[in-house]
Amino acid sequence: MSYMDHSATSPVDPEVLEAMLPYFKESFGNASTLYSLGREARTAMEKARKQVASLIGARAEEVYFTSGGTESDNLAIKGTISRLKGKGNHIITSAIEHPAVEETCKYLEKNGYTVTYLPVGEDGIVKMEDLKESTREDTILITIMHANNEIGTIQPIKEIGALAREKGILFHTDAVQSVGKIPVNVEDMNVDLLSISAHKLHGPKGVGALYIRKGVRIDPLFHGGGHERGVRPGTENIPGIVGLGKACQLAEENLYENMEYVASLRDQLIKGVLGSIEQSFLNGHPTKRLPNNANFRFSSIEGESLILQLDFKGINASTGSACSSNKLEPSHVLMAIGLEEVDAHGSLRISLGKENTPKDIDSSIVVIKEVVERLRSMSPLWCPGGN
Amino acid sequence: MSYMDHSATSPVDPEVLEAMLPYFKESFGNASTLYSLGREARTAMEKARKQVASLIGARAEEVYFTSGGTESDNLAIKGTISRLKGKGNHIITSAIEHPAVEETCKYLEKNGYTVTYLPVGEDGIVKMEDLKESTREDTILITIMHANNEIGTIQPIKEIGALAREKGILFHTDAVQSVGKIPVNVEDMNVDLLSISAHKLHGPKGVGALYIRKGVRIDPLFHGGGHERGVRPGTENIPGIVGLGKACQLAEENLYENMEYVASLRDQLIKGVLGSIEQSFLNGHPTKRLPNNANFRFSSIEGESLILQLDFKGINASTGSACSSNKLEPSHVLMAIGLEEVDAHGSLRISLGKENTPKDIDSSIVVIKEVVERLRSMSPLWCPGGN
Ligand SMILES: Cc1ncc(COP(=O)(O)O)c(C=O)c1O
Ligand SMILES: Cc1ncc(COP(=O)(O)O)c(C=O)c1O
Repeated sequence: MSYMDHSATSPVDPEVLEAMLPYFKESFGNASTLYSLGREARTAMEKARKQVASLIGARAEEVYFTSGGTESDNLAIKGTISRLKGKGNHIITSAIEHPAVEETCKYLEKNGYTVTYLPVGEDGIVKMEDLKESTREDTILITIMHANNEIGTIQPIKEIGALAREKGILFHTDAVQSVGKIPVNVEDMNVDLLSISAHKLHGPKGVGALYIRKGVRIDPLFHGGGHERGVRPGTENIPGIVGLGKACQLAEENLYENMEYVASLRDQLIKGVLGSIEQSFLNGHPTKRLPNNANFRFSSIEGESLILQLDFKGINASTGSACSSNKLEPSHVLMAIGLEEVDAHGSLRISLGKENTPKDIDSSIVVIKEVVERLRSMSPLWCPGGN
Repeated sequence: MSYMDHSATSPVDPEVLEAMLPYFKESFGNASTLYSLGREARTAMEKARKQVASLIGARAEEVYFTSGGTESDNLAIKGTISRLKGKGNHIITSAIEHPAVEETCKYLEKNGYTVTYLPVGEDGIVKMEDLKESTREDTILITIMHANNEIGTIQPIKEIGALAREKGILFHTDAVQSVGKIPVNVEDMNVDLLSISAHKLHGPKGVGALYIRKGVRIDPLFHGGGHERGVRPGTENIPGIVGLGKACQLAEENLYENMEYVASLRDQLIKGVLGSIEQSFLNGHPTKRLPNNANFRFSSIEGESLILQLDFKGINASTGSACSSNKLEPSHVLMAIGLEEVDAHGSLRISLGKENTPKDIDSSIVVIKEVVERLRSMSPLWCPGGN
C-alpha cells in the first residue's frame, strides 16, 4: 500500500507512540493532582510544551494545548474577537482557508462582524497590495493560513505579519499543514497566534496546540477548571500532549533532511505525471508550495472515481480536502485559483510523507496513468489532444 | 501503591489500550476520507458510538464525540442557550456543580442570563420543591449533575427530568462521574443532554461524548468541516473514540459486579475510618452516593498536608476536587453542604476503583489513622475529645 494522503492525516511515528504508552499505563495521573503521580504527568506535559515551543521558536509559556487544529483555529479567532469586543468588527482572511477558519468567519459574519476574504491569484497566493487596501480602522484580526491543505501553497506570512504589526492588528495563522514540514518561527514570521495539529506531523489525533504571543490575551471557548491558565479548561490529555511533543521534537531534528527527501519524491512525481499523462496540470504555485504536496488536475476525469480506483490499486490520495470530501460542491480552494467546476472535480491531491520511497513514486506514476486513461476511455467528455 | 483517586482520573484498562493500539498504527486513517483506510476508521468510530449508546440506553445517532467532559458540558449548555436565543434567559443549576458547569453558568450570568443556583441540604441533594419554585416562564435550561465529583451524592435525576419535561424545559445532566459506575439510562432519567468523559471510566484522557436526544437541536462551539453532523467539527480522535467505546462496553458488561465489589470496599473503608479515628465524619449522603466515593472530614487537619503525607505512604487521594486542588479557596461543594471553612479544608476524598482490594483498604485505614494522628499531634488546634 502507498499512503499518499499525509495532508489528511499521517501515521503516528513509532517513537511517538512509544513515548505516549507509559501515560496510558503506569503514569496515568491527572496533572491537576498534588501527589507524585500527578506531578509526573505535569512534568511530562511541561516537557512537551518545551518541545512544541522549540519547533516554532516560541517560549514554552506561549504554548497552550487543545484538542486539535479545528479547536486551535476556533479558539484563536473567537477568543480574540470576544476579547476585543467594542474595539472593531472587521476581520481579514483569505479565500482559501481551511473550513475551521472559513466557517468560523462565516459564523462571525452572521453575528455582526464584517469579513474580507482576500482573493488569491492563479498561483494560490494572496497579494500584499490587496491586504494593505483591505485594512481598516476597525480591523481587529487578520487570519491567513501558512500553507494550504489542498494545493500546498505557502503565503508570505512574514510580510503579512509585519503589516499587521505596523497597523496594530492581531495576526493569526493556521500553520496546521506547515509545522513540522517547513521551518516555522513565530518571531521571524511576526505572528501573534498560530495553530498546530498533532496528527498532521506524525503525532496522534485529538490533540493540538495554539501559540499565543506573550501579552496577547484571548477569551476561552470552554469554562471550567483553570487548566492551561484558564485559556483551555479540561483535564489535560497527557498521552496525546506527550505524543505531540515527541512529534515536534522528531520533526525539528529531521526537518531539513525530511524536507529535502520529500521534495525530491514530489518532484519525481510531478515530473512523471505531467510527462506521461496527456492533459495533466499542476494546481497551485510551482515552487512556493509544501515539499510534500502535489495537486494535479486531469481533464475529463471525475475525482471521486479516480480516488476509488487508486484505492483499489493500493494508493491513498484525496480529491479536495478530506474535510469536504463528503460534500458534492467543488473545492472552494480550487475555485479560488480560477479552475472551472469540472476541473476542480477532476483534481487529485497527493501529499507525501517520509515513509514514501522513490519506488512508491515510480509505481504510483504508472498506476495513476493507467487509471486516468481507463477512466477517460469510458468518459464521453474525453477528447484526446484537447478540446 | 494504592491509587484511590478514581474521581480525578482512572487507569486505562489494558483491554481498552489494546483496542486503541491498531488505530495509532496500521489503521491510522482519517475517517473523512473516501478510501478503505478511511472507511475502516469510520467503521471503528460507529462501533464505538453504539457501545457508548448502549451503556446509557440511547440510540447511536444521539451520541456525539467530544474532547472530554469539560467540552461536553460547555457544548451542551452554550449550544442550547445559543439555539434558544430569544426564547428566554433563565437557567437553573445546582450549587455543587463541577467547574465545567459552574463556571459556564457564571460566564453566562455576565452575558445577560439569569442563573438560579439551587442549594443542597446537608446531604448534598437538591430539593424538588426548590426546583419547582425556581422554574419560570423564561427558564430555558436545567443543568444538574447526576453524581457529584467530590462527595459522590446522587441527585434525583428522574424526577428532575420529569419536571423539566412537564414544563417544556430542556434538561442537561453532567454524568461524568456516574456513567460506568451506576446504571444510567437516558430514557428512564428523562434527560435531553448528558455529558460523559472517558478517563473517568478507565478510558483515555482527551475524549468524551455528549448525548443529545433526537429532535433536540444545539449550536456547535466549533465551526469547521462538518464532522459529527456539524455539532462537533474537527478530525475525529479515532483511537480515543475506540477507547471510550471499549471502556463503555466493559463498564456495561461488569456494571453490577463492579458496583457491588467497589461498594463493599467503600463500606469497609468508611467503617474502618469512622470506627478508628476520633472526630472523623463522612461528608455527603450516607447511602445516596456513588459506590466508589467516601469523603471524610477530620477536625483540626489541613487537607493539603494530609494528601502529601498519604502520598508519601503510597496512597493517592484528593482534597476538594482535582480541578480546584491548586486553588486555596475551600471547595464550593463542601461549603454548600454547610461545612465550616476549616472543616472543608480538612476533608479527604477517597474514590475507589475495581483494581483496589480489601487488603489495600485495610492498610489504608491504618495509614490514614496514623497520618491523621501525627498531623493532629503537631496542630495547635487539635483538642482530643472535641471542643
Ligand atoms: C489547514 C488546516 N487547518 C485546520 C485543520 C483542522 O485540524 P484538525 O484536523 O486537527 O481538527 C486541518 C486539517 O484537517 C488543516 O489542514
Ligand atoms: C462531574 C464532572 N464534570 C466534568 C468534569 C470534566 O471532565 P474532563 O476532565 O473530561 O474535562 C469532571 C472531571 O474533571 C467531573 O468530575
